[in-house]
Amino acid sequence: MDVLARLREQQGGFVLFAITPPRLSTDPARVAEVAAATMDRLRPLDLDGLVLYDIDDESSRTEVDRPFPFSPTIDPADYLAAHLGDWPTPVVVYRAVGKYDAGSLGSWLSSQDPSRVATVLVGAASADAVAPLSLTQAHGLRRDLNPDLLLGGVTIPERHDRRGDEHLRLIAKQEAGCAFFVTQIVFDTNAAKNLVSDYAYECRARGGDPAPVVLTLSVCGSMRTLEFLRWLGVEVPRWIENDLRHSADTLATSMEQAYAAAVDLVAFCRGLGVPVGVNVESVSIRRVEIEASVELARRLVEHVRA
Amino acid sequence: MDVLARLREQQGGFVLFAITPPRLSTDPARVAEVAAATMDRLRPLDLDGLVLYDIDDESSRTEVDRPFPFSPTIDPADYLAAHLGDWPTPVVVYRAVGKYDAGSLGSWLSSQDPSRVATVLVGAASADAVAPLSLTQAHGLRRDLNPDLLLGGVTIPERHDRRGDEHLRLIAKQEAGCAFFVTQIVFDTNAAKNLVSDYAYECRARGGDPAPVVLTLSVCGSMRTLEFLRWLGVEVPRWIENDLRHSADTLATSMEQAYAAAVDLVAFCRGLGVPVGVNVESVSIRRVEIEASVELARRLVEHVRA
Repeated sequence: MDVLARLREQQGGFVLFAITPPRLSTDPARVAEVAAATMDRLRPLDLDGLVLYDIDDESSRTEVDRPFPFSPTIDPADYLAAHLGDWPTPVVVYRAVGKYDAGSLGSWLSSQDPSRVATVLVGAASADAVAPLSLTQAHGLRRDLNPDLLLGGVTIPERHDRRGDEHLRLIAKQEAGCAFFVTQIVFDTNAAKNLVSDYAYECRARGGDPAPVVLTLSVCGSMRTLEFLRWLGVEVPRWIENDLRHSADTLATSMEQAYAAAVDLVAFCRGLGVPVGVNVESVSIRRVEIEASVELARRLVEHVRA
Repeated sequence: MDVLARLREQQGGFVLFAITPPRLSTDPARVAEVAAATMDRLRPLDLDGLVLYDIDDESSRTEVDRPFPFSPTIDPADYLAAHLGDWPTPVVVYRAVGKYDAGSLGSWLSSQDPSRVATVLVGAASADAVAPLSLTQAHGLRRDLNPDLLLGGVTIPERHDRRGDEHLRLIAKQEAGCAFFVTQIVFDTNAAKNLVSDYAYECRARGGDPAPVVLTLSVCGSMRTLEFLRWLGVEVPRWIENDLRHSADTLATSMEQAYAAAVDLVAFCRGLGVPVGVNVESVSIRRVEIEASVELARRLVEHVRA
């Protein structure tokens, strides 16, 4: 069974790798090279699928200056169509719905092959952001135009620690058609456990089953990457920061931390009867950090399938 | 080497069991029975030592009503002298300094045998509490009257999450003579890791070594015990509460959680080069919870000495 079939059957046990398309300003020949290099790097991993992120300028979300300048990236749907046609497994394409109008999102949704593509629709980064299309409207379009297209949602464990209602948001999204949830990058395993636990018990209390949760992991190879993770809203516990800051090999330390966190969380989800998969990304574009993320994914394929 | 020698050499690898003396109102014959039963229960464990708590009325610390009524307990020094004379290993006697004046605390400190007893001096529960003797004054008495008497301090990981300076308090207490630290009961391993990590790195930055940290663990056998733990200031993560609330055997679930937390934290401390020991207590006076705490201590003796 491929990952889309697994998700439809509410099963976990898969590993995805998430890619952010190159910047829009990248020379087209270079884009093709980057795509080919990425495929070459990922093909040996026997991944269950790819995730393609759709990056929106999130500066409205926070007052803090972005540590790296925002630069628009190639539309993930265009990137998939133009450069990833050979990729052998399914692809989960993110759509930051605030960037689109009903016409453009609707035509993209209509034209997707549900046996090959799933989508994760992401709402605007802050309540203040004025978007032409709301997440609710986008969910409606998917239901009306391509109901077989597997739909996922994002979830932010840190938000649950602050507000305590993230599990209810997941249930509302499930009712709106979401069949799986992808977390923000997790460094704070306690926050992730709190969310998954409240979600699982609330589903059971309502007589339902939790949808698969896809845990996103990443490595952090420098204090600059750590700063960016925090800007993105990722809670990085002090002890993790301390170990990274004082490590002779930050990236190797981060790899061990991320692997241990994934193993802990996968066991936790399974213990609760929550179907669980893993998604690995690199938040940094430095080659060594990308390669470490690939290595993390390779180790997690071994672990999750074992 | 007994635990006092280990602590003097800044070594970990020991397991203590903490006891709260019976209520002052207990019939004297019954006190002797309780003490004998406790000794019988603990002797087979091959513990490194006992801890005797000194309970103060902490209602000034919080506005929330105490879930169990406060009832004064027998002075731990009196309990030790009258009933625990046969106990074969060292005893760590707590002194809630707010309960004593300089004369009574000083005469107790003077009369202790440093080869048999250590003391943990605990400050008043809240800054508002007016105490005849401050913690600083009590530290001074120990230094002046019985400098060989091993001195410990308490530490509250949750306070570090709120204020971020608990590691500096530990270093200040070390300078005032504390040779080891005993945590409040830990359920939130992330908070404990944050504290131990900041403490270890700060010690190294100052060219010193961290003193042994004694992690206190307990089991929780009912929602009423959980409520009391929270009243005491123990942060119990949501996921732990959920698992306990929905478990068919709350006590067994809590045992596994506490054992896993201890194993995780002992490995974490050792990885940071922080000498680590374990202290087990029962916050409940229900027999099944006490017996589960004893079983937890038995498993931790095996683990910590392995």
